[in-house]
Amino acid sequence: MRLIFDPRPILMNIGSLLLVMACFMTAPLIADIAANDGNWPSFTLAAAAAAFVGVALILSSRGHSNRLTIRESILLTVTSWIVAPAIGAVPLLFSIPDLTVSDAFFEATSAMTTTGSTVLTGLDRLPAGILLWRAILQWIGGIGIIVMGIALMPLMRTGGIRLFRLESSERGERVMPRVQNFILMMVGVYLALTVACALGYWIAGMGAFDAVCHAMTTLSTGGFANYDNSFGAFENAAAEWVAVVFMTSGAIPFFLYIGAMRTGPATMFANRQVRGLLILLVLSILAIALWLRVKDGVPPLLALRLSAFNVTSIVTTTGFASTDYTTWGSLPVGLFFFLTFVGGCTGSTSGGIKIQRFQIVFFELRNTLQLLLSPHSVRPAGRPGQPSDPETTIGAMVFVLIFLLTIAGVSVLLELLGYDIVTAVTAATTAVANVGPGLGTIIGPAGNFAPLPDAAMWILAAAMLLGRLELFAIFVLFTRQFWRF
Amino acid sequence: MRLIFDPRPILMNIGSLLLVMACFMTAPLIADIAANDGNWPSFTLAAAAAAFVGVALILSSRGHSNRLTIRESILLTVTSWIVAPAIGAVPLLFSIPDLTVSDAFFEATSAMTTTGSTVLTGLDRLPAGILLWRAILQWIGGIGIIVMGIALMPLMRTGGIRLFRLESSERGERVMPRVQNFILMMVGVYLALTVACALGYWIAGMGAFDAVCHAMTTLSTGGFANYDNSFGAFENAAAEWVAVVFMTSGAIPFFLYIGAMRTGPATMFANRQVRGLLILLVLSILAIALWLRVKDGVPPLLALRLSAFNVTSIVTTTGFASTDYTTWGSLPVGLFFFLTFVGGCTGSTSGGIKIQRFQIVFFELRNTLQLLLSPHSVRPAGRPGQPSDPETTIGAMVFVLIFLLTIAGVSVLLELLGYDIVTAVTAATTAVANVGPGLGTIIGPAGNFAPLPDAAMWILAAAMLLGRLELFAIFVLFTRQFWRF
Repeated sequence: MRLIFDPRPILMNIGSLLLVMACFMTAPLIADIAANDGNWPSFTLAAAAAAFVGVALILSSRGHSNRLTIRESILLTVTSWIVAPAIGAVPLLFSIPDLTVSDAFFEATSAMTTTGSTVLTGLDRLPAGILLWRAILQWIGGIGIIVMGIALMPLMRTGGIRLFRLESSERGERVMPRVQNFILMMVGVYLALTVACALGYWIAGMGAFDAVCHAMTTLSTGGFANYDNSFGAFENAAAEWVAVVFMTSGAIPFFLYIGAMRTGPATMFANRQVRGLLILLVLSILAIALWLRVKDGVPPLLALRLSAFNVTSIVTTTGFASTDYTTWGSLPVGLFFFLTFVGGCTGSTSGGIKIQRFQIVFFELRNTLQLLLSPHSVRPAGRPGQPSDPETTIGAMVFVLIFLLTIAGVSVLLELLGYDIVTAVTAATTAVANVGPGLGTIIGPAGNFAPLPDAAMWILAAAMLLGRLELFAIFVLFTRQFWRF
Repeated sequence: MRLIFDPRPILMNIGSLLLVMACFMTAPLIADIAANDGNWPSFTLAAAAAAFVGVALILSSRGHSNRLTIRESILLTVTSWIVAPAIGAVPLLFSIPDLTVSDAFFEATSAMTTTGSTVLTGLDRLPAGILLWRAILQWIGGIGIIVMGIALMPLMRTGGIRLFRLESSERGERVMPRVQNFILMMVGVYLALTVACALGYWIAGMGAFDAVCHAMTTLSTGGFANYDNSFGAFENAAAEWVAVVFMTSGAIPFFLYIGAMRTGPATMFANRQVRGLLILLVLSILAIALWLRVKDGVPPLLALRLSAFNVTSIVTTTGFASTDYTTWGSLPVGLFFFLTFVGGCTGSTSGGIKIQRFQIVFFELRNTLQLLLSPHSVRPAGRPGQPSDPETTIGAMVFVLIFLLTIAGVSVLLELLGYDIVTAVTAATTAVANVGPGLGTIIGPAGNFAPLPDAAMWILAAAMLLGRLELFAIFVLFTRQFWRF
């Protein structure tokens, strides 16, 4: 019998992934020893296990062809995004007392999908190694999604994927650098921005350790914090403004930074997605700041700061909170809910539906209204850079609609477990959109996912993975065609 | 200066509409005299005014060409759906003490868009004439939307519209009867079904007056009842099952009845939309009945009856309630929320997104997943009757997405007025989808729209019109192209 897949290239890659994870574990290992927290055996054990399995996998799958078929690429991607959180969960499981397997896997998945929902309470008292590891997991997840966007996405012809390619050709960069070089440049940009952010936090007055951890969770638009009160613990206006800048940086297409290095920063603001994101941010921030000023009597500058930080955090799908914004009243709560869906730009670390898909919908609304008046006209060809070929449009719209139906499906599962409609719908949304906080007393920005039962943990972890892999890479595994010889 | 529109054909048609409304007002007038309620001057005055203005409009706009341009058709449609509720509101305003203009217009708009949200309390004590008039308004609204579907929709190339045409050609009925004959046949079917429903209610034990009124609000999938407790007032299982049958009948494409008369009822169940609707109904009813049985310990038959009546009422966008289903627990509440969006079939009296658009989304999901695996394949042509040309697909998807964005927009406006997220979002949804009840303590199935301020009334009335005219006919009025010479 012939195997439908050659498993060796997949196992080889998974092996490499395990080795990389093992290497990254040395950082919290060192931090733990430095802080004398006594958790170093956990990290050592986890790293050794990951390295051992990794090497075994690599050795056992040598001698394969390096070219992956589409099926193998999809299988590798999905497997990687399940194996990595599983490995990432091991040190948490070893180091934190009373943490169940469900909790640990949820936490690691929430980290690597850059969602940022947490089941851990008493973060303030956790050992430094654990806090660092959570931040590193988010940071790996962030770069992981960007690399996936380059390596896998061009294979797919749906939504964000396609858009990414169009976006680059729009820049006139038809001669792309070789993919591997390109990936290295992206990693460089990501690293440089993280360092800049850490420096910014440090100058703003954060301790060095907090600065590094939060820089990693900022650029990855992940949103894990070292404190139960999230950014509220710092009460530091300067740090919040630094966060606003770098959360937005994380939500911008990373290939634009490379373009900007060559042609100047104006290239970046010329991009339709970036402009759309900035306009949305400014309008939402002003609307909520105005509400805080008028309805709640908050001083103007404080209103602007509160609004800017929390709105940017949600739109970029980071998920930090500087206060419990669910107490701000009806309009802010409603806007925060809708903003949870939006997301940043394609090719960034952010999740959600993504700005460009909304731009496609509005473009097609204009088309539709025009066709209404002149039924015999043909579809306009669209402006340069506007993806207006029907296939791309349909791909993007199917994505948005299935995204929403997925959220509805996850909500219904949570309602089956007995959760009220606000908790269920916002938990599902925040998971699929990889944002972090929901609404309601349990999972709101002042709450925590710890009270949820194991079943809810697994449902939400699956929802995060679905959202992070933009649905279709996972859904396709459930089709007959995928497994047909 | 040349006028962009010839206003005469529009005024002529509005005049005829006023005359028709005046004629219909004689029914409550007679009912009022028969019941000796003393409100007959209100109806006489309103009918006389409507007739006078109607005749004046017709006389002043004689001698025009009968052919309408697309712009004129759109303008006529939108104007009609504003004028008709305005006229319909007059008898309410005259007869009910303390009713404001906002309340009356809201009530009449809710009636004619077959939404069924009410601001009136103490329905049980209202004069018969008023109750009959409310039912008649819904009945006119129901047939109005079907006629609009035949007369105007083929002009538009978007969503339901296009689908309707495709659906008929699918039946192989390329040689359609002349449009006017076709409309008359539809009115006949509508009337016959209403009579059958009234008989059913009467046999089930309802009084003759209630049977007639509720038959009119059942077939129009409107959902106005003569009692504050809606259908709960009857405590009549047989009547509820009759309602289940005829609410479903109202949500089926009306042209299928004409086909069924020629080729037998099997034609109807062969239709994809109808099958989709029935499958959705059966699954939802069973899910909620099972929940009622298992979680709340309701006896099986009662659980089935409660679930069947209230689920069918929401899916068909009727909006009757036999009890306060928001007390049934998390899953039913969540499902009722999502079912509010769904709607019935195209070419019926029901609102919502409509079954066929969901079928298009799932069809395209399958396409997308297939393309993922074979990127070099071409878009499958689709099975016969499955609208798979890109333009129809894009039209349907743009509709769904703009439908959802409209709901989000209306929600934000209601949140600006201070309403909590559940009330705001469900009020917006129930209005745009023309369903009736929302969730939460104010506008839930046991509640009433009376506590809402005037601003909310006007916002929701506009939302109902937007939903009823399938958005684009109204949005196009806000484009520059529409008004350009």
